[in-house]
Amino acid sequence: MGTMKKYILISNDDGINAPGIAALAAAIETIADVVIVAPEKQQSAVGHAITMNDPLRVQKIFHGEKFYGYAVNGTPADCVKIAIRTLLERKPDLVISGINHGSNTAISVIYSGTVSAATEGTILGIPSMAVSLTTFAPEADFSYAAKVAVHMAHLILEKGLPKGTLLNVNVPAVPEAEIAGVLVTKQGKSIWNDEFESRRDPNNREYFWLKGDLLELDTSEDIDQGAILRNKVSVTPIQYDLTDYKFLDKLREWDVSGV
Amino acid sequence: MGTMKKYILISNDDGINAPGIAALAAAIETIADVVIVAPEKQQSAVGHAITMNDPLRVQKIFHGEKFYGYAVNGTPADCVKIAIRTLLERKPDLVISGINHGSNTAISVIYSGTVSAATEGTILGIPSMAVSLTTFAPEADFSYAAKVAVHMAHLILEKGLPKGTLLNVNVPAVPEAEIAGVLVTKQGKSIWNDEFESRRDPNNREYFWLKGDLLELDTSEDIDQGAILRNKVSVTPIQYDLTDYKFLDKLREWDVSGV
Repeated sequence: MGTMKKYILISNDDGINAPGIAALAAAIETIADVVIVAPEKQQSAVGHAITMNDPLRVQKIFHGEKFYGYAVNGTPADCVKIAIRTLLERKPDLVISGINHGSNTAISVIYSGTVSAATEGTILGIPSMAVSLTTFAPEADFSYAAKVAVHMAHLILEKGLPKGTLLNVNVPAVPEAEIAGVLVTKQGKSIWNDEFESRRDPNNREYFWLKGDLLELDTSEDIDQGAILRNKVSVTPIQYDLTDYKFLDKLREWDVSGV
Repeated sequence: MGTMKKYILISNDDGINAPGIAALAAAIETIADVVIVAPEKQQSAVGHAITMNDPLRVQKIFHGEKFYGYAVNGTPADCVKIAIRTLLERKPDLVISGINHGSNTAISVIYSGTVSAATEGTILGIPSMAVSLTTFAPEADFSYAAKVAVHMAHLILEKGLPKGTLLNVNVPAVPEAEIAGVLVTKQGKSIWNDEFESRRDPNNREYFWLKGDLLELDTSEDIDQGAILRNKVSVTPIQYDLTDYKFLDKLREWDVSGV
């Protein structure tokens, strides 16, 4: 008996029919048993939403006669939660979310369904990683990002991750020959320069579309967005204790008890 | 000319018709001009979701003939974003989200729509605070929590908050006479002991309901949940740079570039 084959849960926020999750699953299948549990529909920018007020349905998806994965009528976090709590026969060794079609850097990390699936894996005690390709182009090539995912999966399985920590990986959308390396980075501070475009429906009622760009407030090489701009893969360790430890002592000097 | 009256934006995740936001607005109106921009429907556990793929509608809500606030067909973060970017005549001095009907402590902070509204205010450069009352009881009394909100609003307006930092306030659901003080705390590590209850619909198709309790992994007094258990108001400073700074150097020793 050798060591048991590794078992890896794959999810995403682009939905089970997205090409990015297919590229990821095909690459990861070369090193582990894979199970896909993903949203039935695209779920971008859902943040760390979970479904509490509606029932969840789980549907088995086949490609031809071959079982492909489970589609859930919920969010990425729902998918990972119901997979680990209910659907899977055993605890996975790793959760990978992706490959997202679009970057998840800077402030976008907190809006990201892709990251939230990996965060949910971490919350449930499984080493986890989110992988994104930094383009929205419809004909995106996920092959190099899938190689990165396999390499990082090997590293995580070998070395483990600290309790409560996951990796957020962003891969530049350039040909593999132009990739200039891999960097460990911090989450950037860039925010969205968003605005709401006012339109009128055919009944002359106003509605709004959100639009905007990521403002490049900081492009130094040691942050996620800065690495991507230099054609380097960005690997950011993230966690979900939001406490501002630096401000705790100062806040304790406030008269908070004067209510 | 005295100083200009302060202008405070109020939102929540329980929806514009919830009693908690009404109690908050009534209390805050004694110290500032108030504008309410809140979801038209209850939005619990939506995390930091924003609406990118659907149009937003904004509806003016009247109580009798008096304008009450704007209802948005979106998430708490959408409400704060569209308020500050589009609806309000000037930048508010403060954003307050709440009063939430139920606690937002420990791991729940990352699922919380209440907190995400305040986070969005912080992202947009406005000092912000989330306020929650730690009960789901339908006949909850929000009056003491509203007093806490007013006191904390005064303090924030006087002292300011660091860029990128907001306050997450949880108020024990006990009579005011039993409140044992106010504590500055850290976000706790408790997670949900969740499970999915399998049921059958009238057509015998399976569906799942999420249920569960917050596991009390740590109840020391300096964490949010620990303060609440001692009938103390919990005030946690939080931020949204998720970088795990402690793990950065260790991760830099990994062979991340070996792909």
